[in-house]
Amino acid sequence: MKLYDSKLAPNPRRVRIFLAEKGISVPTVQVDIGKGESRKPPYIEKNPLGGLPMLELDDGTCIAESVAICRYFEATQPNPPLMGTDAADQGVVEMWQRRMEFELFRNVTGCFQNTHDFFKGRIEQVPAYGEICRKAGRARLAWLDGEIAKRPFIAGGRYTIADITALCAIDFGRVVDIRIADDQKNLARWYETVSTRPSAKA
Amino acid sequence: MKLYDSKLAPNPRRVRIFLAEKGISVPTVQVDIGKGESRKPPYIEKNPLGGLPMLELDDGTCIAESVAICRYFEATQPNPPLMGTDAADQGVVEMWQRRMEFELFRNVTGCFQNTHDFFKGRIEQVPAYGEICRKAGRARLAWLDGEIAKRPFIAGGRYTIADITALCAIDFGRVVDIRIADDQKNLARWYETVSTRPSAKA
Repeated sequence: MKLYDSKLAPNPRRVRIFLAEKGISVPTVQVDIGKGESRKPPYIEKNPLGGLPMLELDDGTCIAESVAICRYFEATQPNPPLMGTDAADQGVVEMWQRRMEFELFRNVTGCFQNTHDFFKGRIEQVPAYGEICRKAGRARLAWLDGEIAKRPFIAGGRYTIADITALCAIDFGRVVDIRIADDQKNLARWYETVSTRPSAKA
Repeated sequence: MKLYDSKLAPNPRRVRIFLAEKGISVPTVQVDIGKGESRKPPYIEKNPLGGLPMLELDDGTCIAESVAICRYFEATQPNPPLMGTDAADQGVVEMWQRRMEFELFRNVTGCFQNTHDFFKGRIEQVPAYGEICRKAGRARLAWLDGEIAKRPFIAGGRYTIADITALCAIDFGRVVDIRIADDQKNLARWYETVSTRPSAKA
């Protein structure tokens, strides 16, 4: 088993934190995004869309997409549960995972891809769309501050994959100035809790 | 239990097809998107982000997000499995579900929201971004035509939630002219298979 990883990108960190929370260790291969290694052979023969991270199983099966890789490990090692327990809890955790993905993570990366120099010349940037993402990302943090006032973690009383997605989105959000505002005290309390867990260093 | 549904929007159809494949019947409530019912009370008291569909359980728990609702029913009624069987298959199905969501569904809706008259005045549209989505959506269909040449269904030998997401994306794609092209014979064969299943009428 091998995990194709990049220390530069926000998605692979989601899997690294997930594995750290589970106490699972997997051999990793660093793929150099700056040199375009994830966009050319041999990597794209395993993952034609070129994204990172990717998990290659011993039988050659390749699983791309951070949440899909987490799903694999949730099934092979259910404890501690990070994707929900019973049916209702699995649904609620998946709802919050997706909200953190679409409302935070995607706005951060949408802003980054469309406004940041790193992507200049790599993709067709639309700065006006990037600015909408920035505004939306900030608005979602304000909304999340109210939500997180009601419970310790994003999806309820327990740390889950939704916290991991939110943490990675917020940390990466700094590069595009999507940050927890001074008056967002609930979010700041949550951030302090999750970012000081040992897994956050992964 | 109640499913908040809309016959007009593409996301609720994903859940309706999923339920039809499982043979599960749930009482539904139609929410009128045209009249803005999904963006005001009492609906947004249950789902603050205002999206559809949403499942309300008898204890009052509300699960929004189509895939999260499917996850709930996959856990309560595992057969037929639509989200994978063993750990590796669960990972592979989730990978393809996400690819269909991000590469097809999101490009179709991104194009629709940013170019279509329906959203004029409702959101800040960026037509240039919508055109990028249109081009990307078409490119992804060409890529998928090659992928689907290798197997009967999107994620392998079995019909899964990835087929549902792709079908709903492609059917809704017509409104923004993201369509299966004449030379995409593999995709046409797959489309014929999945769109003639009784569940496709859901």
